[in-house]
Amino acid sequence: MSNEQLDLLRDKLDEVNLKLLELINERAQLVQEIGQLKSKQGVNRFDPVRERNMLNHIAENNKGPFETSTLQHIFKEIFKASLELQEDDNRKALLV
Amino acid sequence: MSNEQLDLLRDKLDEVNLKLLELINERAQLVQEIGQLKSKQGVNRFDPVRERNMLNHIAENNKGPFETSTLQHIFKEIFKASLELQEDDNRKALLV
Repeated sequence: MSNEQLDLLRDKLDEVNLKLLELINERAQLVQEIGQLKSKQGVNRFDPVRERNMLNHIAENNKGPFETSTLQHIFKEIFKASLELQEDDNRKALLV
Repeated sequence: MSNEQLDLLRDKLDEVNLKLLELINERAQLVQEIGQLKSKQGVNRFDPVRERNMLNHIAENNKGPFETSTLQHIFKEIFKASLELQEDDNRKALLV
């Protein structure tokens, strides 16, 4: 009986993982578009003020159970990966 | 004109951030429930095989633009934070 419950929760977790995967990639696409736009405008890609604002926004909207510091750590990893993606795009654009 | 475009993309990014925040916390809740169930069954919380399966599932379903290795790195951070949350719950339960 309990194992059925465990399987059910695990199925739900797998669903959430796939939704997260989709959303993280959707976010990456948006960041790529922003990078391309900034590149055209000759603006620097990394904007620490914007990053700080996004982290504050996360803090304001966190209803738990994760601590805000934990979430901000996870989001910083996503930001870092996104910046690397923009840099890769830029490198490829320079090679064309 | 271009700044309007930038603002629009940033608004979309903020929306995606909030959805991610919600989903990461929803995932944390599920992990807490799984932890409670495992605790009742006297089963170890950390299951490396299950974690490996989740990472494989992510690899199989990744449509980009992020590389699978990048996504797996982000998910490992989420897994680690989730395990810490379960450990906190367990510590609190032992104190009751």
